[in-house]
Amino acid sequence: MSKTQYYAAASLDGFIATSDHSLGWLLQFGDPEDSSYPAFIREVGALAMGARTYEWIVEHLVNPGGEAESSWPYTQPAWVFSRGALPVTPGADVRFVSGDVRPVHEEMQAAAGGKNLWIVGGGDLAGQFHDQGLLDELIIQVTSVTLGQGAPLLPRAIVDPPLRLISATPFGEAFVELRYEVPWKERSSGEVRISVGTG
Amino acid sequence: MSKTQYYAAASLDGFIATSDHSLGWLLQFGDPEDSSYPAFIREVGALAMGARTYEWIVEHLVNPGGEAESSWPYTQPAWVFSRGALPVTPGADVRFVSGDVRPVHEEMQAAAGGKNLWIVGGGDLAGQFHDQGLLDELIIQVTSVTLGQGAPLLPRAIVDPPLRLISATPFGEAFVELRYEVPWKERSSGEVRISVGTG
Repeated sequence: MSKTQYYAAASLDGFIATSDHSLGWLLQFGDPEDSSYPAFIREVGALAMGARTYEWIVEHLVNPGGEAESSWPYTQPAWVFSRGALPVTPGADVRFVSGDVRPVHEEMQAAAGGKNLWIVGGGDLAGQFHDQGLLDELIIQVTSVTLGQGAPLLPRAIVDPPLRLISATPFGEAFVELRYEVPWKERSSGEVRISVGTG
Repeated sequence: MSKTQYYAAASLDGFIATSDHSLGWLLQFGDPEDSSYPAFIREVGALAMGARTYEWIVEHLVNPGGEAESSWPYTQPAWVFSRGALPVTPGADVRFVSGDVRPVHEEMQAAAGGKNLWIVGGGDLAGQFHDQGLLDELIIQVTSVTLGQGAPLLPRAIVDPPLRLISATPFGEAFVELRYEVPWKERSSGEVRISVGTG
């Protein structure tokens, strides 16, 4: 069954980017050889991201300056949440949207053909999906640094019921990947029921 | 050799307490049966904590209200950093100090008899030991919750060189314990040399 997954790298102290949007803290480790990313992305049928994540990808991956132009890194359709106009990326299957995440989630599911939905970032967008009971899993590459401040991983309180740790997989000294299920949503035949804790 | 260790529980998003100092998010899990704490505390010869951590322990563990008075939970000597006066706890081997952590670290080492030094919290006190090149290890119980805001785990940027992940040990669905070495300090015959990265 299709899952909605927030897959992201974070510092040990819970930031996904520095205050000045630098990713040097992360890129210093290079591409981890044994990353879970190839297996993860094969199962993704649609993605969603915020405007800043989109701009970062365009700036760093699509138009990385002096070098030969790279291309949009995803073959899956992508929904980009933005209040303002953003530059179109040639060759990218991107829809610009704003507002409520629920209708976008329905569109993504229709497009994904039974594959998973990836919330690329940022943290508040993942939080909006969670607010609506639409987030199923967190897959966080906890990186062996602290940043002290920056963009938060997930600016929400998810305490009662807590997340469920599914696995913890180290990748050398640089990363540990933590997988969590969001347990408070139970679906039966397409219906969403929200259990409320008593604690 | 004696190590200085920051051993603490944190949320997945890097907080050690909520903004209102509640620990319900942590205590909902009860005492984990297989915790690393018994083995950890056996090797501790001295501890240091900030004023708020001390007050929390006194309020919640020593004087938990209506019930029979409990006692100070540590047999090791403890140094409490505080700018103001704090209530003395009967039966507790506590020294109140303030200012630079370096002379306190020396006192702690002298008292610890070769055992480890535990920085109990909070995050800024651990950061002050790190600032002086005195922190050797982080041992963090990453708890399966997010808090969204609160008291930060370690309000410092430790990026270059990064920490070194030593181990990741899950305890059921509620915790994963991550152990890190702080790699930029090399000691030889008691001397502290600080290597400066080039990145």
